[in-house]
Amino acid sequence: MSARSEDTVDKADRVASDSHIEGQPTIAVVGDGQLARMMQPAAAELGQSLRLLASDTSASAAQIIPDVVIGDYTNLDDLHRVASGATAVTFDHEHVPPEHLRTLQAEGVNVEPGPDALLYAQDKLAQRKKLREMGLPVPPFMAMESVDDARQFWHVMDGEVCIKACRGGYDGHGVWFPESEDECADLVATLIDDGTPAMAERKVHLVRELSAMIARTPSGESALWPVVESVQKDGICWLAIAPAPGLEPSLRDEAQRIATRIATELGVTGVMAVELFETTDVDGDPAVVVNELAMRPHNTGHWTQDGCVTSQFEQHMRAVADMPLGSTAMTANCTVMANVLGGDEDPDMAWSERMVHVWKRFPEAKIHFYGKGFRPGRKIGHVNISASLVSDSADSAGSSGEQSNAVSPDDVRKKAQEAAYFLVHGQWPETAD
Amino acid sequence: MSARSEDTVDKADRVASDSHIEGQPTIAVVGDGQLARMMQPAAAELGQSLRLLASDTSASAAQIIPDVVIGDYTNLDDLHRVASGATAVTFDHEHVPPEHLRTLQAEGVNVEPGPDALLYAQDKLAQRKKLREMGLPVPPFMAMESVDDARQFWHVMDGEVCIKACRGGYDGHGVWFPESEDECADLVATLIDDGTPAMAERKVHLVRELSAMIARTPSGESALWPVVESVQKDGICWLAIAPAPGLEPSLRDEAQRIATRIATELGVTGVMAVELFETTDVDGDPAVVVNELAMRPHNTGHWTQDGCVTSQFEQHMRAVADMPLGSTAMTANCTVMANVLGGDEDPDMAWSERMVHVWKRFPEAKIHFYGKGFRPGRKIGHVNISASLVSDSADSAGSSGEQSNAVSPDDVRKKAQEAAYFLVHGQWPETAD
Repeated sequence: MSARSEDTVDKADRVASDSHIEGQPTIAVVGDGQLARMMQPAAAELGQSLRLLASDTSASAAQIIPDVVIGDYTNLDDLHRVASGATAVTFDHEHVPPEHLRTLQAEGVNVEPGPDALLYAQDKLAQRKKLREMGLPVPPFMAMESVDDARQFWHVMDGEVCIKACRGGYDGHGVWFPESEDECADLVATLIDDGTPAMAERKVHLVRELSAMIARTPSGESALWPVVESVQKDGICWLAIAPAPGLEPSLRDEAQRIATRIATELGVTGVMAVELFETTDVDGDPAVVVNELAMRPHNTGHWTQDGCVTSQFEQHMRAVADMPLGSTAMTANCTVMANVLGGDEDPDMAWSERMVHVWKRFPEAKIHFYGKGFRPGRKIGHVNISASLVSDSADSAGSSGEQSNAVSPDDVRKKAQEAAYFLVHGQWPETAD
Repeated sequence: MSARSEDTVDKADRVASDSHIEGQPTIAVVGDGQLARMMQPAAAELGQSLRLLASDTSASAAQIIPDVVIGDYTNLDDLHRVASGATAVTFDHEHVPPEHLRTLQAEGVNVEPGPDALLYAQDKLAQRKKLREMGLPVPPFMAMESVDDARQFWHVMDGEVCIKACRGGYDGHGVWFPESEDECADLVATLIDDGTPAMAERKVHLVRELSAMIARTPSGESALWPVVESVQKDGICWLAIAPAPGLEPSLRDEAQRIATRIATELGVTGVMAVELFETTDVDGDPAVVVNELAMRPHNTGHWTQDGCVTSQFEQHMRAVADMPLGSTAMTANCTVMANVLGGDEDPDMAWSERMVHVWKRFPEAKIHFYGKGFRPGRKIGHVNISASLVSDSADSAGSSGEQSNAVSPDDVRKKAQEAAYFLVHGQWPETAD
């Protein structure tokens, strides 16, 4: 895939459009990535307008939003500029300094989610403390304030240790699994030297990862989506399978109960993902443990764009504007999302030609492209594929209610993986894996 | 609903974003209404970028598209400006002068659909002649070149006469049903005096109206959606019910055969709606007659946004870029679209508050707002409601394949009508009609 274009289209004639409608919400979005980008189609259909704080005019979200302010999300002046006149301020990421958000809030700006809730998505140690206080399942953990702390925790946990930077991590960045006590101690020493607050927790032996997503409004309404299975690759979300295949109803209920309690008791607004580990408890029974919180639309919710009555992006826009939430009913029996992550090198085949090949094989593939240039491991798009509930229009047009044969989640997953593979590599995988 | 805002948001900081991505299609769209507006979310997800020719910076589509050129679609220079650098030029309406499109085409601009096909959506007489030549079902018709023509046709048809302006009509404008021979003659005299080319055709005694929609690529691939019933109110599309309830399979096949023949033999590209009358033939058997052609996304296809794997807007963008077409399988057993048409007066209740009330009653209502101010009879939005195929997430999360109880199209229609009624009037209808 190629880099951004150099004026292939003449911009001399371009005008600034009037993007805001009186009486309709204007939502300021801080951050310019694909999450902000995918808020725009949802907002447009609702008649909301977005005002974006972007780092660059060519950023993923800036490409499709008419009202863009260029600035730095760590700069209070820039935050003031984007918040000016907005009904609410919301986020593409969690990296805005909490003190700036408190200042905005004190000035009367409507920040959704607010800094008191957002803290628990920004600071992993604060999150662990809060969830433990609430009696929710988290692994044993400890703040790492010295090398002694590291050695002590290593011994107590018998070497089953995970070290995390408390802030700023994402997609596997800021998480380490040391293989010896010395490695663990050295790592913690380096983090302390760098001024990076760190924590340790017991490594969880997981069966798989799950994600429980919920949306909540400032008025207190909440709505849950089905719990999904998420599959990681090198610490990055790779697949989401909805609903999580074969999930025990009791475990599903527990995951949703946890998400509801966190959203309610922490006062979360907008969309939140609770990433969970499915594991086994001391008795060998299935159990869940909370991994991370994300207070914004999340990669494990992209499947809702093509698999639910209300997508996570529409729900987020409704929630931050304190409007009633939409139905989260599924429109298919199974939907699988596969991320398109930049490979080691970008194939010669143009991106649009790759789309052609994928659509020829899978006419039901929903390809979402973020307008980003290639970089190894970078999230550049995703594909959603659903199991048809109604047979093809050629057969069913005019006749309602015909059901297709049952499609297994494995079949759908295989299709989604193949489609994403082709979009990355410009060729089909050799073996159907 | 209020008019457009006067700078409630400061625009001083706004910058022009880079909306075009190298290697991805840039599509020029002529026309700034809701159809162009609804192309933008679809294009954004595909990584296509739009370049809009709008009459005004506050027009419905201009609000959400970063690259807007202000101009007049009847002016060749303005058409050149928007077409510059675009992969293809397509349309929000059919009113661009064919001679300009031929000039663009001769200059190498890729116009989709091309003027030779578009003619049959622009000129009702040319359409009637062409379809009759193809052996497709149309009512008896005649060009009205004199008052004598009008009187003669009146007699031959025994007063069952409809007069149409050959060009420029839409939503019931340009169609008349004279009640006497003299009225018919006077009407035709006036049209001739005004220089308005006119035609007459036999009034069709219709059972109901149907719409068969199809998309076709320049390479010749085509895809049909299920045939829908459309219900008009004062000549304007009011409801679309998908699929058309109780439609005879033979009639459905006939409608789709007609759409496919027209698309193929006229070389149509992009989305086309074939509006049909369901009637009875001389033997009293059900039959269809072609009413109008629209070569663009169409009001009777808005239901596909929330009822199909591929919406008409996504399909149009794929088709005009000559990319493979998507699955047109339904994601619900039944979807009903109800238009929100401005009432006699605009209620005091703000539009966003009306949305709140509708969503509280119908969490499954998909409201699409066009960002347009109030005017009686004006299309300002629409609502899609589908019959759930899967039970609510609260019940079904984690368990796939559960089917809800059968929902009748009448129930879905009633909900969609009530939702649209509230959006228009700011109150619920007194009787459930």
